[in-house]
Amino acid sequence: MNLSQALLNQNRLALTRLLTQVENNTKQGREALNELFPHTGKAHLIGITGAPGTGKSTLVNQLALYYRKEHDYRVAILAVDPSSPFTGGAVLGDRVRMRDLSGDQNIFIRSMASRGSLGGLAQSTSAMVQLFDAANYDVILVETVGAGQAEVDIAKLAHTTLVVEAPGLGDDIQAIKAGILEIADVLVINKADRPGVENTERALKGMLELAHPARRVFQHHGQNMVVEAEEKDEEQENIWIPEVKRIIAKDGDGIAELGEAIARHVDFLRESDEWSRQTRTQLQTTLDALLREKLFNRFLDKLSPQVYAKTLSQIIKREESPWSAVERLLR
Amino acid sequence: MNLSQALLNQNRLALTRLLTQVENNTKQGREALNELFPHTGKAHLIGITGAPGTGKSTLVNQLALYYRKEHDYRVAILAVDPSSPFTGGAVLGDRVRMRDLSGDQNIFIRSMASRGSLGGLAQSTSAMVQLFDAANYDVILVETVGAGQAEVDIAKLAHTTLVVEAPGLGDDIQAIKAGILEIADVLVINKADRPGVENTERALKGMLELAHPARRVFQHHGQNMVVEAEEKDEEQENIWIPEVKRIIAKDGDGIAELGEAIARHVDFLRESDEWSRQTRTQLQTTLDALLREKLFNRFLDKLSPQVYAKTLSQIIKREESPWSAVERLLR
Repeated sequence: MNLSQALLNQNRLALTRLLTQVENNTKQGREALNELFPHTGKAHLIGITGAPGTGKSTLVNQLALYYRKEHDYRVAILAVDPSSPFTGGAVLGDRVRMRDLSGDQNIFIRSMASRGSLGGLAQSTSAMVQLFDAANYDVILVETVGAGQAEVDIAKLAHTTLVVEAPGLGDDIQAIKAGILEIADVLVINKADRPGVENTERALKGMLELAHPARRVFQHHGQNMVVEAEEKDEEQENIWIPEVKRIIAKDGDGIAELGEAIARHVDFLRESDEWSRQTRTQLQTTLDALLREKLFNRFLDKLSPQVYAKTLSQIIKREESPWSAVERLLR
Repeated sequence: MNLSQALLNQNRLALTRLLTQVENNTKQGREALNELFPHTGKAHLIGITGAPGTGKSTLVNQLALYYRKEHDYRVAILAVDPSSPFTGGAVLGDRVRMRDLSGDQNIFIRSMASRGSLGGLAQSTSAMVQLFDAANYDVILVETVGAGQAEVDIAKLAHTTLVVEAPGLGDDIQAIKAGILEIADVLVINKADRPGVENTERALKGMLELAHPARRVFQHHGQNMVVEAEEKDEEQENIWIPEVKRIIAKDGDGIAELGEAIARHVDFLRESDEWSRQTRTQLQTTLDALLREKLFNRFLDKLSPQVYAKTLSQIIKREESPWSAVERLLR
């Protein structure tokens, strides 16, 4: 039996091995992704992001326990740390997690440190998620650290994105996160027993109003999450208003309510057809990226290394521009 | 006379127009880059990055004034704000700058908000820098906000990268910036009159030791910036040890010393041949990116849109994997 078949039979060792193959982008990894592709597309992918110190890992642990206990879901956790693009040596808090979760055969935890470019990171994450999906995990929690393009890329990948904040991290972090807020489906204020929680909630709601102006009109509907667009003339379109949830992850406070908010978001995605649209966009991105890569590699295979080296050296001497060099090489 | 020729004659309006063409990636912009390429490769590109609240813009203003007054350099400033990838509507503090700098014909200021992917942002930045270079600016200051891949990309572009910190921004920001520190050639502690400056300096130096272990051995050399690698057995290699400089940008304190540190870094780049190595890497990246893009576009032009659409739809139905689809399309 090959590794792909073993993975489909929920063999943990096969999954572990294929994750490594896929992370290292080996031939075996690519073949497995190809074989397993028909078995993907079922899992709910949840991205969790936020600055260091917001308690993301504790939240992820608690959510995993919630999905195990309340829904009997199989849960995969993928912790991605792109904060150190050069050393790639970040230590992730796996051992802390293990105490709560390691006994459970239906929870699988994997860490990944960034090695290459973030484009590559998003691609590896996407590929590893497909393995979890094929291995029949119902929920895949993808945790990222930092503030920047990694979060945006992972938000594009995830069905539901949680952005985690905490009181007392200062206005500067809030400012840096203005772009991140726009990708949040649910805003989580962790450590809600700390002083300043009202200020944090007010600041986040203020920023949400800026990011989602339609919200102002419909804010008084309270629990009505799916609202109609402001302009009746345009094609009616459903809008998701990000929910703001206070929790105390270390005590498990608010986790069930957060789980319900996530469930409402999934309902919204299904009803508004946004789920299929996301899937379509992601698969098209994958197709185009593979096409680009293959075309480039095939071209380099045919080109003599001497011609490539000579072209580069002419460019360095400013004798030929990269644009005219490309025109010439493609002729 | 065409715009490229006018730009070479230091016509500001021509530069402004071509910057817009290049930012929007128009045909005219690409043709200008091609024409101007032989005139590039002279300018010193300095990247300035750091979290919001560190006073980067004030520092950039002061550095520009320093280069005007002390060296009579022509100075270009490009302010890039990728913090809001979705709205792209960040407001940059141009008007504040104008008061000091706008009267001077040898200073040129341009803002750019991120519109597309950060890959695209790095490409636009690189292209706009080439225009400034051709227009005979001696120093190009590229300022970015945030913490993440954008900084890494711009560090790859810049000859010299300044990372700006300020006392009192909290440990969390320091943690998030562990990866950023590794790209710093000069670490600037702005607002050095604020309490906590010693702590900030100690923290930064501690992180530098982690990032550059060789530094420990040679730290007592003090001003000796170019040191030999620890292992004599390996090929001897020059190492730049990032300098840490305290400044008070709003009063201009420490700017001249910062300018001297930057000059030492340029000397190091020239002497160690690192300058040519950087240039080579950048031009190869440009060449490869153009090749990829052209090959992909040429392929799509030849492919019938129906075949592409049908392929995508089969992938969405999980009837064919993206990998086997690419194999089939390329056959």
